[in-house]
Amino acid sequence: MLPLLEPDGQGVTPCCPPLTERPFTADEAETAARMFKALGDPVRLRLFSAVASHEGGEACVCDISDVGVSQPTVSHHLKKLKEAGLLTSERRGTWVYYRVEPSVLAAMGKLLTMAPTAA
Amino acid sequence: MLPLLEPDGQGVTPCCPPLTERPFTADEAETAARMFKALGDPVRLRLFSAVASHEGGEACVCDISDVGVSQPTVSHHLKKLKEAGLLTSERRGTWVYYRVEPSVLAAMGKLLTMAPTAA
Repeated sequence: MLPLLEPDGQGVTPCCPPLTERPFTADEAETAARMFKALGDPVRLRLFSAVASHEGGEACVCDISDVGVSQPTVSHHLKKLKEAGLLTSERRGTWVYYRVEPSVLAAMGKLLTMAPTAA
Repeated sequence: MLPLLEPDGQGVTPCCPPLTERPFTADEAETAARMFKALGDPVRLRLFSAVASHEGGEACVCDISDVGVSQPTVSHHLKKLKEAGLLTSERRGTWVYYRVEPSVLAAMGKLLTMAPTAA
């Protein structure tokens, strides 16, 4: 469920090196492309940003529905983001809360780090 | 042609704040989603990584065709990456050279930076 990260016993390690370090293998590209594709839709990106920027890095659907699409469409996109491993969710009482895993965001950022040799 | 960056007289500034800083506006999401979408294909991501990791941050088509697809398909994907503003190209003699703009990669990385308030 977290395609960019693989459990390594004590925590998680990124799936892939920085894009500038060496050419990606086919497997690495499959994994990372899934995540980029999930963010490659404006509505999904707004929802992801709304969750990521919300207090504590988590938000209820009730907090983030202000993106100009219907509630079922919001739910559909949140599901896609979960399937891509970018969000996790947890039901508490009436509401489902969505959370961006900081480790996933950090792994995504590292993919885009400049390697000194490529500068 | 560089959707993530806007000329500001002396250089370029990123289009958008970090994803964790505040919810993206519709315009910001359109711009950044275009870039993520361009990287959301495994073959394009391998080609992008091949260029980004090549010596000097640039590569000839002759250097990067080893991704298991036909030459026309390689050309098609390189064109898409150019249209998304992720690569630039320049013809020198027989060959076209592709280059990742370091400023674009840096801007992409900044989108994924964690804001302290969201940690």
